[in-house]
Amino acid sequence: MSLRRLLAPLLLPVLLLFGAAASMPALAQDKVVYHIDNAAEQGTKALRNIRNHLDVAPKTEIRVVTHAEGVDLLLEGAQDKKNNIDYGPLISDLKGRGVRFEVCEITMKRRNLTRDQFVMEAEFTQSGVVRITELQARDRYAYIKP
Amino acid sequence: MSLRRLLAPLLLPVLLLFGAAASMPALAQDKVVYHIDNAAEQGTKALRNIRNHLDVAPKTEIRVVTHAEGVDLLLEGAQDKKNNIDYGPLISDLKGRGVRFEVCEITMKRRNLTRDQFVMEAEFTQSGVVRITELQARDRYAYIKP
Amino acid sequence: MSLRRLLAPLLLPVLLLFGAAASMPALAQDKVVYHIDNAAEQGTKALRNIRNHLDVAPKTEIRVVTHAEGVDLLLEGAQDKKNNIDYGPLISDLKGRGVRFEVCEITMKRRNLTRDQFVMEAEFTQSGVVRITELQARDRYAYIKP
Repeated sequence: MSLRRLLAPLLLPVLLLFGAAASMPALAQDKVVYHIDNAAEQGTKALRNIRNHLDVAPKTEIRVVTHAEGVDLLLEGAQDKKNNIDYGPLISDLKGRGVRFEVCEITMKRRNLTRDQFVMEAEFTQSGVVRITELQARDRYAYIKP
Repeated sequence: MSLRRLLAPLLLPVLLLFGAAASMPALAQDKVVYHIDNAAEQGTKALRNIRNHLDVAPKTEIRVVTHAEGVDLLLEGAQDKKNNIDYGPLISDLKGRGVRFEVCEITMKRRNLTRDQFVMEAEFTQSGVVRITELQARDRYAYIKP
Repeated sequence: MSLRRLLAPLLLPVLLLFGAAASMPALAQDKVVYHIDNAAEQGTKALRNIRNHLDVAPKTEIRVVTHAEGVDLLLEGAQDKKNNIDYGPLISDLKGRGVRFEVCEITMKRRNLTRDQFVMEAEFTQSGVVRITELQARDRYAYIKP
């Protein structure tokens, strides 16, 4: 009897914590990485997806990781030429709602791009694909390819 | 001695359960979300992927989440015009095998579509991208973009 | 007192192991599956992504799963015809760095392809989409669609 009383406080936290892990409960904050490797095809679509995403689930932690032809989304003055849309104001608005935008530095090197060519909302990451992998594998980010 | 005997029944379930979580064992039922945002490009491909998926792993829990130009897959009378394929019977067959098909309501609003324009197998979800995120982040669904 | 001393060695491993699972720490080795279903569009892009991936994170466990028009990447003598690039040496190099390449056997059957038509680096899997699902759902692989 006194044994059980001694055990309870030791086991309870284990069980509670474990229960949390096992059932993957609704997180206060879901996380998702949007993968952009072609701004011309994905840009407008992705920015619209993300705006809708936050309209319905405003607490979602969203990262946009760009590499290859995707970094063009974040170049100063970038446009969706087909639909005549300036990306700048859309990016600025989403940044204000907590979205983080990242540019792959390997791509920058290969394409001779420098930091000052990107909008001020842009952050930089050593490798886009490594980043996308780590966000999923280490931090439980969901993945969406627009 | 009597202590160990008392401990065993308390610790065993913890260890068993924990072992299950740590090793991510073959689940009785794997889960996967197929992401469709362009029916013309992905429709036939996706439906064939899913049929093959279930042929090899019939217990897999499959959700198809459609948004943007992807919802066309689930419109009444929808076709793959390039290959002259009616989607209806394929969807009906997959639904019979447990696949669930969902349509993004934000897309419906933007495109002025109503529920009665969709096949009866269709279900509806507030936001396609939120749904895809939640299935991955909360319920451990794998992700496939056909 | 003697009770606690008895309990400690039993509970400690549980807590340590559990802590590891709960916090999802930086793994010694991240894992990621690259999904290829169209070699013409994704081939060169994917192989370059993977090379960059390993340059920055050399310990990453990378699987390339091909199906549908993606298996062409691994056919003997395959080329990126648009850019005049032989895939063979690139695949061989990546295999030497630990990357594993898999071909969907359902696709082979449908397209009447046999094992001896593929490069010797290729491995074979019953179904590409089942494989991609299992790697994510069971083994915590991240997912990248190039």
